[in-house]
Amino acid sequence: MRNEDSYVALGLKTWNAQIDRADKLFGRLSSEEILREIAPGRNRLLYLWGHLTAVHDAMLPLLSLGERLHPEFDVAFVLNPDKSRADIPSHEQVLQAWNVVNVELSRGFEKMSWSDWIQRHSAVSEEDFAKDASRNRFAILLSRTNHLSYHLGQAVLGLK
Amino acid sequence: MRNEDSYVALGLKTWNAQIDRADKLFGRLSSEEILREIAPGRNRLLYLWGHLTAVHDAMLPLLSLGERLHPEFDVAFVLNPDKSRADIPSHEQVLQAWNVVNVELSRGFEKMSWSDWIQRHSAVSEEDFAKDASRNRFAILLSRTNHLSYHLGQAVLGLK
Repeated sequence: MRNEDSYVALGLKTWNAQIDRADKLFGRLSSEEILREIAPGRNRLLYLWGHLTAVHDAMLPLLSLGERLHPEFDVAFVLNPDKSRADIPSHEQVLQAWNVVNVELSRGFEKMSWSDWIQRHSAVSEEDFAKDASRNRFAILLSRTNHLSYHLGQAVLGLK
Repeated sequence: MRNEDSYVALGLKTWNAQIDRADKLFGRLSSEEILREIAPGRNRLLYLWGHLTAVHDAMLPLLSLGERLHPEFDVAFVLNPDKSRADIPSHEQVLQAWNVVNVELSRGFEKMSWSDWIQRHSAVSEEDFAKDASRNRFAILLSRTNHLSYHLGQAVLGLK
């Protein structure tokens, strides 16, 4: 194993650990519990889960792993705040999308070599990447892992 | 620059970004605001800040960068829940410790080469490290960055 693989493996291990936490946290909730707010007047658990799903879905094209599977989640969970729209995806739909999106990412990650990870991500131009090589796919992995942790810290407040 | 340095630089960039967020979030609070709970009956902002300070302080020996500077923070902010003790460090003390600890870490990080980061951390034995080389210093950096994000997601709920 090359040294480079060690760093990539650690980035993926940290990502997987947070995904597991999210699976356990959200996966055990009933359809009533998922509608709880994390604090009075704050986002509901369903909104956070849908938000995470949408952000992970957007990683597919960002990392050149494929097209988005659920672009329709953005209107409900990214572009608008919680409780501003009646027609958001259901508990069942979010659960299924969450699982499918993360499996698809996981499959994509398996095919990526250490050198793929330090290539530019698709939202940065070749010109900008030439100026700042830190705008690469590994940076996306680390920042999205932290994004997940950030919202897990909130979601745990909505339990019990 | 070696490839290995790219991954380390990204890990440090992500760490620094979260430290900056924490500096801004906690640093602007008055001595009244710092005593707010993040949600009714939950931890106060001062507790979260002290907790993060204690956990970062413990990274110094864990990464072999030096002795702990504030081991006394553990009783107040790690070993006991919030509001269980009257004698916890003050706003001023937490602010100062937070700054000193993170500067000390930052200085230590600057001296570490890419190969230092994939050495074992001090809480794992040589024997266990031989079985699982992922228990290294870079793993600590990534997990503590996520720990910080987790609590930042909570702390932001205590603002305004």
